[in-house]
Amino acid sequence: MKKVNLYEASGFKELGMKTFLVHDSPYFKILNFNFKAGQQLPIHSHDIEGQLSIVVLEGEGEFLAQDKTLPARAGDVLVCDISLPHGIRANSDMRTLVTIAPPI
Amino acid sequence: MKKVNLYEASGFKELGMKTFLVHDSPYFKILNFNFKAGQQLPIHSHDIEGQLSIVVLEGEGEFLAQDKTLPARAGDVLVCDISLPHGIRANSDMRTLVTIAPPI
Repeated sequence: MKKVNLYEASGFKELGMKTFLVHDSPYFKILNFNFKAGQQLPIHSHDIEGQLSIVVLEGEGEFLAQDKTLPARAGDVLVCDISLPHGIRANSDMRTLVTIAPPI
Repeated sequence: MKKVNLYEASGFKELGMKTFLVHDSPYFKILNFNFKAGQQLPIHSHDIEGQLSIVVLEGEGEFLAQDKTLPARAGDVLVCDISLPHGIRANSDMRTLVTIAPPI
């Protein structure tokens, strides 16, 4: 049993999103991605089985998909096949939690 | 690709925690548990392989374990084997997101 507070454990970087590995196991990988306004995780995909969830803890921006964007704000949960193009763009400082199962 | 806003999709119940199934797939199950102050998910365990994460989105309370409690507040992520006793008790209205992999 392990507990981490994301607000204490990680902050923001001037150059590009700040990545913090919360947990990695045979069952899932959990990552905290923090973005300053204007930063992004460019759209990408992995040609493997599995799904990911993105939870927005704070801030707002957009989820990026192949041919559209979806507004992203606190309380949003996005679920997506890992094989489908996905990304995140921040319009304000933004904290997200990404869970990947199975882990990659 | 599916998006849900937890603040819009679910609220609170007077009698016991409010459960909302966000997602269920072969990879993981994602559940939103909302507690009014004083409500709890009693300590329990499942004798199976896997792990769960609990993210506190809002509010505060305690994570319950076999022989201890851990303070729980917004931004906390708890990771726990499903086979280990775990629970949640809310001291204020509290929104949490639970991810179980593999799904049960």
